[in-house]
Amino acid sequence: MIMVYDINEKRVNKVLKIGRKYLNWMQNSVLEGEITRAKLIKLKGELKSIIEKEEDSVILYKLRTKKYFAKETMGVEKGLEEQII
Amino acid sequence: MIMVYDINEKRVNKVLKIGRKYLNWMQNSVLEGEITRAKLIKLKGELKSIIEKEEDSVILYKLRTKKYFAKETMGVEKGLEEQII
Repeated sequence: MIMVYDINEKRVNKVLKIGRKYLNWMQNSVLEGEITRAKLIKLKGELKSIIEKEEDSVILYKLRTKKYFAKETMGVEKGLEEQII
Repeated sequence: MIMVYDINEKRVNKVLKIGRKYLNWMQNSVLEGEITRAKLIKLKGELKSIIEKEEDSVILYKLRTKKYFAKETMGVEKGLEEQII
């Protein structure tokens, strides 16, 4: 799964913290990782309790298989940096 | 394809402008759309000429089929707003 968010700065740290409980941080506003259906429901519940529907936006891209999927990074691989630190 | 970017503010508008030539803006730092292989090469070439390898980051997620793919938006659908305007 890929999660991207565009959140008012008042709430952005809370949303990032929730996201990181379930997924890996990749770069500013982007997390990804494998997630079970049960955990996805939890994640969505936690997000729903924080975000303001009229102002914030979270997009969840869900892939059932990686077979037809490829990822390419240009420039810095920020998610990797974090793992090294 | 989904494109997400984390770019120094000096260059961020240029990167967004390039991205929008090929893809649709969805929310802060996220674009998506269908793209041919030839246009993807052009997009990558234009990005390469702008971004600073040591500082900026662009991730390209490429899906060859939408069959195993689902998208869910929580909160505001910012990409839609833009289309209406």
